[in-house]
Amino acid sequence: MINVLFAARSERWDIYEQPLRRALKAAGIDAQLSQDIPPEEVDYIIYAPNSDLQDFGPYTRAKAVLNLWAGVEKIVGNDTLKIPLARMVDPGLTKGMVEWVTGHTMRYHLGMDSHIVNPDNEWDHRSPPLAQERGVLMLGMGALGTACAEVLAGLGFRVTGWSRSPKSVNGVTCLHGADQLEDALGRGEIVITLLPDTPATENTLNAETLAQLPKGAFIINPGRGPLIDDDALLAALDSGQIAHATLDVFRVEPLPQDHPFWRHPKVTVTPHIAADTRASTASEVIVENIRRGEAGEPFINLVDRELGY
Amino acid sequence: MINVLFAARSERWDIYEQPLRRALKAAGIDAQLSQDIPPEEVDYIIYAPNSDLQDFGPYTRAKAVLNLWAGVEKIVGNDTLKIPLARMVDPGLTKGMVEWVTGHTMRYHLGMDSHIVNPDNEWDHRSPPLAQERGVLMLGMGALGTACAEVLAGLGFRVTGWSRSPKSVNGVTCLHGADQLEDALGRGEIVITLLPDTPATENTLNAETLAQLPKGAFIINPGRGPLIDDDALLAALDSGQIAHATLDVFRVEPLPQDHPFWRHPKVTVTPHIAADTRASTASEVIVENIRRGEAGEPFINLVDRELGY
Repeated sequence: MINVLFAARSERWDIYEQPLRRALKAAGIDAQLSQDIPPEEVDYIIYAPNSDLQDFGPYTRAKAVLNLWAGVEKIVGNDTLKIPLARMVDPGLTKGMVEWVTGHTMRYHLGMDSHIVNPDNEWDHRSPPLAQERGVLMLGMGALGTACAEVLAGLGFRVTGWSRSPKSVNGVTCLHGADQLEDALGRGEIVITLLPDTPATENTLNAETLAQLPKGAFIINPGRGPLIDDDALLAALDSGQIAHATLDVFRVEPLPQDHPFWRHPKVTVTPHIAADTRASTASEVIVENIRRGEAGEPFINLVDRELGY
Repeated sequence: MINVLFAARSERWDIYEQPLRRALKAAGIDAQLSQDIPPEEVDYIIYAPNSDLQDFGPYTRAKAVLNLWAGVEKIVGNDTLKIPLARMVDPGLTKGMVEWVTGHTMRYHLGMDSHIVNPDNEWDHRSPPLAQERGVLMLGMGALGTACAEVLAGLGFRVTGWSRSPKSVNGVTCLHGADQLEDALGRGEIVITLLPDTPATENTLNAETLAQLPKGAFIINPGRGPLIDDDALLAALDSGQIAHATLDVFRVEPLPQDHPFWRHPKVTVTPHIAADTRASTASEVIVENIRRGEAGEPFINLVDRELGY
């Protein structure tokens, strides 16, 4: 029997308790899992950096801190932490992103909203085009953008990927660099922004680039808030240049109640759920590290304390 | 130069004119395409059985009648028709069905409606489960059901297919027959009905079978209206046993304005668009037959006038 402390906010406990118990059981590990264990009796600490636990000194027997977050910048400099620290690398995050992007792309492709909200009971028998007739543009072809582009191409869409440096992805027309951005934008009836958040990518979608999209384009942003110039997007929605936008990320989160995105009839706000760590798959990753610790095997996803990640 | 008569209702002309012209051009066929050509000058007749044209006698030079519909029961017995008759076999129909089913499955899976319609601006940061944690049941594993099941399994869903006779489909748990229906229903968090319309399949989803689904299941019916007992579905929606239903087909179409489905807050009505012939792909099929006729090659999708299909 080992003692596993869950040191994160209580709403996380509600989400993680059952998945962690299931994963421990599946791995055949006999453990007491609790939010309240005397420090000197704790073997592993499942941890979120916004936890009340900031002094690791009393945890004299603990073998590792297993972070629930991918980010470790708030804990990596903690001098009381002398034991191994693992960050979260969740295979569910990419899967969840692909599902969210696929779902909202299909939603725009099929024109679902006009059926979901149809107060006049209109029976408008017009079929949407086929995916093979629909141009989708992926802005950003990193791991997440590429995973999404491949699935959308597999569903039949005409997918173009644009990235800073050249890429090659089966079934996807890959363009790159500033010179090819206008060409790429012209193919984007549905545009998905999955660029990294850097000074160079800020406001990638602005008044000029939004105007280079086909009239009536749809925007889907699961990437980062600053990729889009909010005011330029609102103006393009009002002019009809952009038909509708679904935004999952914002410059300030939660999105302030007085932000015009909330009340704009052509904007759907989703609450930063596209790329979320999932309790089920994250629990399996954490329990794998406990199994390794007990078996004397090296931990996975270890943070290099000197490099800081 | 050949003369191609378009003999279907004028709203079809609006949809088909441009795709047909594009397909003719792509095939390098020099043709006059019109709704109005003297009968004795017509080479090919593009036809819908509800057209005013019912006497083929005057079309002395025509080489074939190319039907826009899959169904030919309204024309196959026409004694004035002495030339070859081809029915529509549209590859776009299956693709469109897969896209519609995939889209609405993702919509329910992601809980999209609560974001699309969110009058209180709620920022409820709860992620949906992953597809690998979601059970989807396909009732009916014919060509369309199998195509949809394969794509949904490819997206990661736990797909069960149920059919009258045994099937084997990669990545899909296949159950069959009355004995295994209850087992299948228990796996259906999202249920798609794609059974054929026969006396045996009428009201497959009724009070008893709806109660065997997991509580809060979603229903998607792109198959046939009579597969579902409307009153039983409404009762199950009101009790909460079924969370929501998206229905594309109905016992009477267009769905009458006074039908309770229109105003039920847990029902989305779509206007029989899931399995529609698509003008783009159907035009290519028609033009391929014109090309064959001009090249002296055998027509495709020919109707056997004695068998009647």
